[in-house]
Amino acid sequence: MSAAPDHRPARPGRRPGGPDTRATILHAAGQLFAKNGFDKTSIRAVAADAGVDPALIHHYFGTKQQLFAAVVELPVDPEVVLGRVDATPLDQLGETLVGAVIAVWDSPAGTGAVALFRSLVAGGDTSPARDFLLSVIFERIRRRIATDTDDGRLRVALAASQIMGVIMSRKIVKLDPVTDLPLDRLVAAVGPTVQRYLTGDIGEVPAAGGTE
Amino acid sequence: MSAAPDHRPARPGRRPGGPDTRATILHAAGQLFAKNGFDKTSIRAVAADAGVDPALIHHYFGTKQQLFAAVVELPVDPEVVLGRVDATPLDQLGETLVGAVIAVWDSPAGTGAVALFRSLVAGGDTSPARDFLLSVIFERIRRRIATDTDDGRLRVALAASQIMGVIMSRKIVKLDPVTDLPLDRLVAAVGPTVQRYLTGDIGEVPAAGGTE
Repeated sequence: MSAAPDHRPARPGRRPGGPDTRATILHAAGQLFAKNGFDKTSIRAVAADAGVDPALIHHYFGTKQQLFAAVVELPVDPEVVLGRVDATPLDQLGETLVGAVIAVWDSPAGTGAVALFRSLVAGGDTSPARDFLLSVIFERIRRRIATDTDDGRLRVALAASQIMGVIMSRKIVKLDPVTDLPLDRLVAAVGPTVQRYLTGDIGEVPAAGGTE
Repeated sequence: MSAAPDHRPARPGRRPGGPDTRATILHAAGQLFAKNGFDKTSIRAVAADAGVDPALIHHYFGTKQQLFAAVVELPVDPEVVLGRVDATPLDQLGETLVGAVIAVWDSPAGTGAVALFRSLVAGGDTSPARDFLLSVIFERIRRRIATDTDDGRLRVALAASQIMGVIMSRKIVKLDPVTDLPLDRLVAAVGPTVQRYLTGDIGEVPAAGGTE
């Protein structure tokens, strides 16, 4: 990664700049993500609000997804987890997902991840993190498992409910045996649940509809 | 249920009383539960702090468990759920638990239940509700499933992680397909998970130890 240019602009305007410009972009993005959600916020709109060129946002932050990750201080680039999901055979998705997600919360970055989880609970269905979860993370997994008769939305939501529950018991409420369990044993216990939700028998599923 | 006596005491003291006395007991109990946890708080200690006779607390609130339920404004008497757990055959515990717990959150009392859930997340491992969950709810289920080689603690914690996750996705984050799913279909999808955690193969379990 190359360092961002650090010559400060002489005055505000549509020009490259230093740390102030970066902060201005993050602020504008934070406002728009909170107001309109992840999906309906464009890099172009953030650029307009921040008074910079869209190319500068890409230069500083990369994709919209990476800009969002910077705004909410996601502890890892979501592509790391999603890339693994893409590369995993369908019948191993459960264990892979549980292992990859819990590893983030177990890592030194876990403090930020716990804060993010709390903000998701506090914000409920208006949290920008929720919108990101739905339109980026869930959508990517859903596309892998959708069939002609099952759009996969319920399956992904059930898998998410189990993973959120494990994070809650391991990191927030701290139920001893789950908190202290080595990751590989947690994966062995919980992976099959997530696998069943994604590809197994979960009873009648809703008819396939749109993607959202 | 008979109504509580409503003649107010002429002055404070160790005597029966009306709404003020009830509030005094609730306040004292709230302080002690928060400070010492559910397990280490006795009716006797609450009575001493509130300046009333322990018998009066039993008269107003019933058991310590019911006093706790009143303090945190639990939407139902936990005995309703626990009584059902006791009466359910081991191989149907999963579906029964999921159905009974989610029904509380789906009921008109669900608003209070959502608040309780949020306080559990906010308080983390210092929440009095957590202590109650561990020492009353979990312990009652654990006793049903414990064997000579498995104390059941990990099993109950895993079951709880799944149920907490479903509450979170259905009531807090509101993931559409889970939020709108009829209860019987949610039970069909999630019940088998909880059943496997409680009595099925979950990989190696920790050696049986104490009860806590």
